Amino acid sequence: MSERPIIAVDAMGGDFGPSVLVPGALEASRTDNLKVLLVGDTPRIEAVLAKSNLDGVDFDIVHAEEVVLMNEHPADVLRRKKKSSIQIGCRLVKDHVADAVVSAGHSGAAVACGMFIIGRLKGVERPALCTMLPTERTPVVLLDAGANVDCRPYHLFQFGLMGDAFARDILNYESPRVSILSIGEEEGKGNSQVKEAFDLLKGAKNLNFMGNAEGRDIFTGDLDVIVCDGFVGNIVVKMSEGMAKSLTHMLKRCFKSSIPAMLGALLAKGAFKSFRKTIDYAEYGGAPLLGLKNLAIVCHGRSNSLAMTNAIRMAGTFVRKKTVERLAETILANEELTRFSRSN
Amino acid sequence: MSERPIIAVDAMGGDFGPSVLVPGALEASRTDNLKVLLVGDTPRIEAVLAKSNLDGVDFDIVHAEEVVLMNEHPADVLRRKKKSSIQIGCRLVKDHVADAVVSAGHSGAAVACGMFIIGRLKGVERPALCTMLPTERTPVVLLDAGANVDCRPYHLFQFGLMGDAFARDILNYESPRVSILSIGEEEGKGNSQVKEAFDLLKGAKNLNFMGNAEGRDIFTGDLDVIVCDGFVGNIVVKMSEGMAKSLTHMLKRCFKSSIPAMLGALLAKGAFKSFRKTIDYAEYGGAPLLGLKNLAIVCHGRSNSLAMTNAIRMAGTFVRKKTVERLAETILANEELTRFSRSN
Repeated sequence: MSERPIIAVDAMGGDFGPSVLVPGALEASRTDNLKVLLVGDTPRIEAVLAKSNLDGVDFDIVHAEEVVLMNEHPADVLRRKKKSSIQIGCRLVKDHVADAVVSAGHSGAAVACGMFIIGRLKGVERPALCTMLPTERTPVVLLDAGANVDCRPYHLFQFGLMGDAFARDILNYESPRVSILSIGEEEGKGNSQVKEAFDLLKGAKNLNFMGNAEGRDIFTGDLDVIVCDGFVGNIVVKMSEGMAKSLTHMLKRCFKSSIPAMLGALLAKGAFKSFRKTIDYAEYGGAPLLGLKNLAIVCHGRSNSLAMTNAIRMAGTFVRKKTVERLAETILANEELTRFSRSN
Repeated sequence: MSERPIIAVDAMGGDFGPSVLVPGALEASRTDNLKVLLVGDTPRIEAVLAKSNLDGVDFDIVHAEEVVLMNEHPADVLRRKKKSSIQIGCRLVKDHVADAVVSAGHSGAAVACGMFIIGRLKGVERPALCTMLPTERTPVVLLDAGANVDCRPYHLFQFGLMGDAFARDILNYESPRVSILSIGEEEGKGNSQVKEAFDLLKGAKNLNFMGNAEGRDIFTGDLDVIVCDGFVGNIVVKMSEGMAKSLTHMLKRCFKSSIPAMLGALLAKGAFKSFRKTIDYAEYGGAPLLGLKNLAIVCHGRSNSLAMTNAIRMAGTFVRKKTVERLAETILANEELTRFSRSN
């Protein structure tokens, strides 16, 4: 592994394509001392580069002639789109040309390519998408955010272990408070899957397990890692986005209802701006797919330059800190418990 | 059934007990021409009545000598606490002394007593807690909000049917837009339970089924009824409460960060107040348990007088409109499809 981490960037994904993703990648390279491999349609990437400031940027272009469409099935992308930017990005990681890959494209396809091209860590059956949500204090890590719709208890268990390692290494949380999302605080509340995962998490080595979390606990900042299956996690993540947006609309409408309120809103413009920044997903970059042999980060389709920069920065930290080794260690240390649950 | 609906009110439940619930009940009786049966400890209820304005109020006291504690198991309450206010309230409904019961007590106990004392509608296996959430436009009905942790597809199907009937009768929505909560808009997305329920809802009679909803669609106001199992529903409802609270805290903090912002907040005080009113659960009263022979409404433990008044008013409308008959009709009209799915 080189001293300067090399990050493959799927330049074709997302709602905005190269015009937004390439500048984000260049910025990350410049400020965080990373090399970026811009994977995608060479002419389109070059067109963006021609208009960019390339001082202090380390990059290469890797041509990809196919593009993944949003309505394609992940398995089809994996089978047929061998020359797509996401497949090529993952193969660069597999072949140790790059240390990690970041994509804002079709997230299902990115998960599938990550799992089957980069491959899973030994002992991990289900890699999990790991998102960060804003809270009243520091961000909370929630996983799985949608990679696995149906989960077994030991999958949830491993999500907890990996979320813990991620929070320690990448967010610098000292002893992350880990919990499992359920419908009541007391032990014994939840569906059968959650109840069994609870017991496993309780028995895990070196885990600061706090027990069940409820929906109302997600945003208080009293928890650092929240475990759930990908069905629930996907709903939670999309709901938090949608609700923040709707509440902002509702608030705006109230502020337009009277002259004093409008004047007040004008005076408080800065406050609104800093509020929006607090809840802006772009500040948190992308969602790492934890449990692979090397890192893949899946970004929001709506990713802007800032989101892309932050995601690539996170990839750089991940590589520098060798977080994959930490993930492998925690999975291995808890192998016995996992195996016991799997055989039940 | 008398012309003036008779609503049994569990006066002992909730965080605040009779001092808050009794005034709420009296207000509903006065303004909505209802008779309320105040069920609970007679001396405590009388103490509140002595300080109340009783003009135009129709009420009786029904003594209950036992109180349900929040840490008791629902099944234990059902088996042992025969003289608790919630059991007596449900028996008043069963014996046709009251037309409906409203409780802000232990919600699990209220659900259990409703199911086993009042009894289920013919053809309904799983009654569902039906909540209303604020959106950018009119409130959305979400069910099940926590009565059933593990559901089969035909349970979800019946939740959709009942939510539709409720939205028509009680919220006066003309052709409610019904959807099922999943992880993607396209047909075929979701876990196996949701995919099968999707097919059933698609085949339902007289149902305006819109397909899958995602977490981000809950608060836009583009949907009227959202179906999910009680595990997901409980998380969604508690998360929406918690997130509204946390966002308000975060917003307040931003407004305290500078003098202009503070001045702005002062000027916009009225706007904030109307915003809080929009997202205040108390405006929506309680959660009816749909699928019983007669109505039980389960209110939030933190219910204030306004929430209690609104819940009792809803019970009155439910009784006057004979909404139970509408529920029975829609369950019966779709019996064949339900039976087909159940036998699979």
